[in-house]
Amino acid sequence: MSESTDDIEILIALMAKLPGLGPRSARRAVLHLIRKRALLLTPLADSMSQVAISARECLNCGNVGTSEICDICLDENRANGELCVVEDVGDLWAMERAAVFKGRYHVLGGTLSALDAIGPEELRIPRLADRVTAEAINEVILALNVTIDGQTTAHYIADQLQGQVKLTTLAQGVPIGGELDYLDDGTITAALRARKEI
Amino acid sequence: MSESTDDIEILIALMAKLPGLGPRSARRAVLHLIRKRALLLTPLADSMSQVAISARECLNCGNVGTSEICDICLDENRANGELCVVEDVGDLWAMERAAVFKGRYHVLGGTLSALDAIGPEELRIPRLADRVTAEAINEVILALNVTIDGQTTAHYIADQLQGQVKLTTLAQGVPIGGELDYLDDGTITAALRARKEI
Repeated sequence: MSESTDDIEILIALMAKLPGLGPRSARRAVLHLIRKRALLLTPLADSMSQVAISARECLNCGNVGTSEICDICLDENRANGELCVVEDVGDLWAMERAAVFKGRYHVLGGTLSALDAIGPEELRIPRLADRVTAEAINEVILALNVTIDGQTTAHYIADQLQGQVKLTTLAQGVPIGGELDYLDDGTITAALRARKEI
Repeated sequence: MSESTDDIEILIALMAKLPGLGPRSARRAVLHLIRKRALLLTPLADSMSQVAISARECLNCGNVGTSEICDICLDENRANGELCVVEDVGDLWAMERAAVFKGRYHVLGGTLSALDAIGPEELRIPRLADRVTAEAINEVILALNVTIDGQTTAHYIADQLQGQVKLTTLAQGVPIGGELDYLDDGTITAALRARKEI
């Protein structure tokens, strides 16, 4: 393309592969980076190189960090007997942002899926049972997405651990700030069935 | 933050500074990068380092490229006597995507602004008159944004070049795919005034 030269086109093409950026916003981002070369482009390049070397999955829970065992698994204060099972690291981060859960996590790395041939062995499911015993867990909170695959996976795990440990799942209902008019029928049904006396 | 370690937090903070990405989408993008380390993270880091070294402004027109004079200015086929004046490189790229203009560009690097104390000397305006003579330009197309600052700048440039060269500006009217119901009054007024016989 005549509009700029190869190095820049390559960078635009790579940036366009990021979730949330399309070809146009990638162009805008690259222009912004070139304008802020010292302040943003060079630090970002260095930071990416650093993370490419140092990022790794926690051997215990599957969280992403820069050491063999992540900060949460190393923190003895979080060994409170509660283990929260999530699909992926993004979900773990979302839980941490809410800052309400004080126990540890177990990141499955996906959901069971017959279509994609993803069975328990492809996920971090076998390790979950080991941790329940080894870490003296007394409650496993299944915080999986409320999707077909997420709920199938939750049922499978519940079957595996039944009788060994208390099993709970996140409440379903109207989200904070939610307007009934915009909610789907399933959510309204769940919220009504789980209604509470005030 | 306990949710991940320093290197990764630094990368998230830097990514969040990109236009189009907020803190949340920066997190998602970084997770995506870590998952696609060999395919995306490392190539992106290398590409950014490369661009940080090689990107530069064309000494002639202000386009961004990797050489002293950009490909468009070097292309003798584009010396057709037409010079298109744009505010910034993003606008030049937008014109090139449309692939309709066959001449050369002149990138001002912004607009005149009394508030921000940006006068002609802060922009690439003095150089414009030089180019009109040196490159035997016979038409200057003022393709500035239809904003107050853009139009003020267009008037200023028109004043400077009046009598030396043919001056034109992009047509104003209903955009392709535009619905009258959603257009502002100014656009409708401009489109009506510039109506054409069919």
